[in-house]
Amino acid sequence: MNTLAKSGVAWLISPSLAAAMRRRMRVAGFATSSSSSSIPNWEGGVSMVQGASRGIGLEFVRQLLEKNEKGYVVATCRNPKEAKSLIDLKNSFSERLFIHKLDVTDETTIEESAESVRERYGSLNLLINAAGILSIPGVLQPETTLSKVEKSSLMLAYEVNAVGPVLMMKHMWPLLKAGGGSGTKREVAVVANISARVGSIGDNRLGGWHSYRASKTALNQLTRNVSVELGRRKDPVVCILLHPGTVDTDLSRPFQRNVPEGKLFTKEYSVQKLLHIINNAKRQDNGKFFAWDGQEIPW
Amino acid sequence: MNTLAKSGVAWLISPSLAAAMRRRMRVAGFATSSSSSSIPNWEGGVSMVQGASRGIGLEFVRQLLEKNEKGYVVATCRNPKEAKSLIDLKNSFSERLFIHKLDVTDETTIEESAESVRERYGSLNLLINAAGILSIPGVLQPETTLSKVEKSSLMLAYEVNAVGPVLMMKHMWPLLKAGGGSGTKREVAVVANISARVGSIGDNRLGGWHSYRASKTALNQLTRNVSVELGRRKDPVVCILLHPGTVDTDLSRPFQRNVPEGKLFTKEYSVQKLLHIINNAKRQDNGKFFAWDGQEIPW
Ligand SMILES: NC(=O)c1ccc[n+]([C@@H]2O[C@H](COP(=O)([O-])OP(=O)(O)OC[C@H]3O[C@@H](n4cnc5c(N)ncnc54)[C@H](OP(=O)(O)O)[C@@H]3O)[C@@H](O)[C@H]2O)c1
Ligand SMILES: NC(=O)c1ccc[n+]([C@@H]2O[C@H](COP(=O)([O-])OP(=O)(O)OC[C@H]3O[C@@H](n4cnc5c(N)ncnc54)[C@H](OP(=O)(O)O)[C@@H]3O)[C@@H](O)[C@H]2O)c1
Repeated sequence: MNTLAKSGVAWLISPSLAAAMRRRMRVAGFATSSSSSSIPNWEGGVSMVQGASRGIGLEFVRQLLEKNEKGYVVATCRNPKEAKSLIDLKNSFSERLFIHKLDVTDETTIEESAESVRERYGSLNLLINAAGILSIPGVLQPETTLSKVEKSSLMLAYEVNAVGPVLMMKHMWPLLKAGGGSGTKREVAVVANISARVGSIGDNRLGGWHSYRASKTALNQLTRNVSVELGRRKDPVVCILLHPGTVDTDLSRPFQRNVPEGKLFTKEYSVQKLLHIINNAKRQDNGKFFAWDGQEIPW
Repeated sequence: MNTLAKSGVAWLISPSLAAAMRRRMRVAGFATSSSSSSIPNWEGGVSMVQGASRGIGLEFVRQLLEKNEKGYVVATCRNPKEAKSLIDLKNSFSERLFIHKLDVTDETTIEESAESVRERYGSLNLLINAAGILSIPGVLQPETTLSKVEKSSLMLAYEVNAVGPVLMMKHMWPLLKAGGGSGTKREVAVVANISARVGSIGDNRLGGWHSYRASKTALNQLTRNVSVELGRRKDPVVCILLHPGTVDTDLSRPFQRNVPEGKLFTKEYSVQKLLHIINNAKRQDNGKFFAWDGQEIPW
C-alpha cells in the first residue's frame, strides 16, 4: 500500500494523480525536458531532504523553497501529520513542496518514498540526509566514559546515523542517476550526508560520545565507499559529507553550555553555508568531507 | 551461573578452585607480587585472546605459549568444546592456558569471562580482540555494489567487529588497569584490536565490502576514543589497532585469487610481526593504527 494514500493528509496527492499532474506540468512548461529526451528536467531541480521535521533538515527545506524561485522539494519525516512547520511551508509552497513519511529505520518507508518520487518526478538532483540522533532521554545517552557504553546505544545510533543514509543512497541512486544536474546549475546530482566533526578520527582529542562518534565515522566511510563506486561508474552523481558546525537545534541544546561564544550558529547561517557548498559541488568534490566554511576535515 | 561450571569441560577449573590455586602458585613463587603490593604480578603476564578458535586468534594463543617460557593465556571462543586446536594446546600447556566461552554478541558471556579472570588472576596485561566476520554464507555477503547493501549485514558486521571489541574493553578495563605492565617487559598493559586496512577511509580506493569496511572504520574510531580516555586518566594501558596483512585463513580464503604473489601471509608470519609490535608498545603508541610491518595506516 502506498504511503501517500496511507497518510490520509489531503494535500499528499496520490501517485496516479501526480503522474497526471506531471504530464500537465510538462505541457505547461514547468518541466522543460523535450519529449525526445529520456532525462527529466524539472526546472530548478528536485531535491529530497530526509529528516525534515525539525532542526537543520527543516531549515534546508525552508531555504530551498524561499531562496530559489523554482525547484521542487520532497521533504521526508517520520510523522508528517505532526510536522507543523512543514505543514506551514506546504501552505505557502503547495506546488513545490511534497511531504512523505519516511523513517530511516524502516526500509520499506524508504522504498515507498523512492517509488513515489519515481512516479511523480522520475528523477532527483539532490538528496540531503539530515536525520540524526545524539541523545534520546531514557534511550540513548551520550557516553562520558567507557564504563557507560551500552550495546543498545551503539546499535541504535549506527542504525539511524550510518545505516539510514546508506539505505537512502541505495534506493535513491537510480533517481539521482536519472537526474544528474538537469534543471540545476550543477553538472551533477549531489548526495549531501550530514556528518559531524566529532566523527573525525584524526581530530578526536576529547573522547566520549562513543555511539554517536562511531556512527558518524562509519557514515563517513560508507559515503566515501559509495563515492568510489559512483566515480568509477562515471555516474553524474557526487556524494559529499558536511559538518554543519555547532548549530542551535534540539540536538545540541543539552550541550550548548560548553560552546565558546560566537561558535553556536543559527540554523539559518549554517544551512546557508552548507547550501553554498552543495550548489557549487563538482565532480572533484566527490567523497570529500567539508565543514560549513568549506574547509576539508581529516578522516 | 558461571560459564566455567556450565561448560562441563573437566580442565576448565572452577573459580573457587582457581582462587585456591592462585594462592598456592603465589606461595610456589609463580606469581611474584609481594603480599604488601596490591598489584598482581604473574610472571610473563596474563594475556587474553578473544576469538581464539581459529585463524589469527588461534595463532596468537599458540605463539604466546610456544615462544615464551612463561606467561598465562586466557583464550576465548564461542564453542570451547569444538575448538579442537585449542584443546590440543591445552594438553601441552595445561597450567598456562585457560579456555573460556565468549561470544562477543552476548554481553553476559563477556561479563562472565571478566569475572572468571578477576577471580583467577585479578589482572590482565594484554587483550587481543581477534574475532571478526567478513562473510558468512547465506547471512553476510561482502557487497560488490551499493545496490547489494543489506541492512541486516551492516548491523551484524557492526555488532561483531565494532561493538564486540568495545564491550570487551569496557569489561576488561579494570583488569588491565590492575595489570599494567607487571610481569612483562612493557610499562603498560596493551589492548590490541585487530582491524583491517580496508577500514581506512583515506586509503579507500576500491570501494565495496560496505558492511565490513564500515565496521572496521567504526572500530578504529571506538579504539581511538578509548585511547583518549586512557591517556587522560594516565591509566597504565594503551590501545592499538593492528592490520595483519592479507593472511591465509578461513576469512580471506574466498578472496585469495586477487592477492598478488608474495602478499598472502601465513598466520605464523603475520602474528610474529604483530606480537613484535605489541611487545614493544609504549605509551606514545596509544591510539595508533599499525600495519604488520609497523607502518602507520591513515584513518
Ligand atoms: N546541531 C548540531 O550542532 C549538529 C552538529 C553536528 C552535526 N549535526 C547533525 O546534523 C543533523 C541534523 O541535526 P539537528 O541538529 O537538526 O537535529 P534535531 O533538531 O534533533 O533533528 C533531528 C531530526 O532527525 C529526525 N530523525 C530522528 N530519527 C529519525 C528516524 N529514525 N527516521 C527519520 N528521521 C529521524 C528527527 O525527526 P523527528 O522529529 O521525527 O524526531 C529530526 O527531524 C544530524 O545528522 C546531526 O547529527 C548537528
Ligand atoms: N585474514 C585476513 O586476511 C585478515 C585481513 C585483515 C584483517 N583481518 C582480521 O583479523 C581478525 C581475525 O581474522 P581471521 O582471518 O583469523 O578470521 P577467521 O579465521 O575467519 O576467524 C574468525 C574468528 O572470529 C570468531 N568469531 C566470529 N564471530 C564471533 C563472535 N560472535 N564471538 C566470538 N568470536 C567470533 C570465530 O569463531 P568461530 O570459530 O566460533 O566461528 C573465529 O575464531 C578479524 O578481525 C579479521 O577481520 C583478517
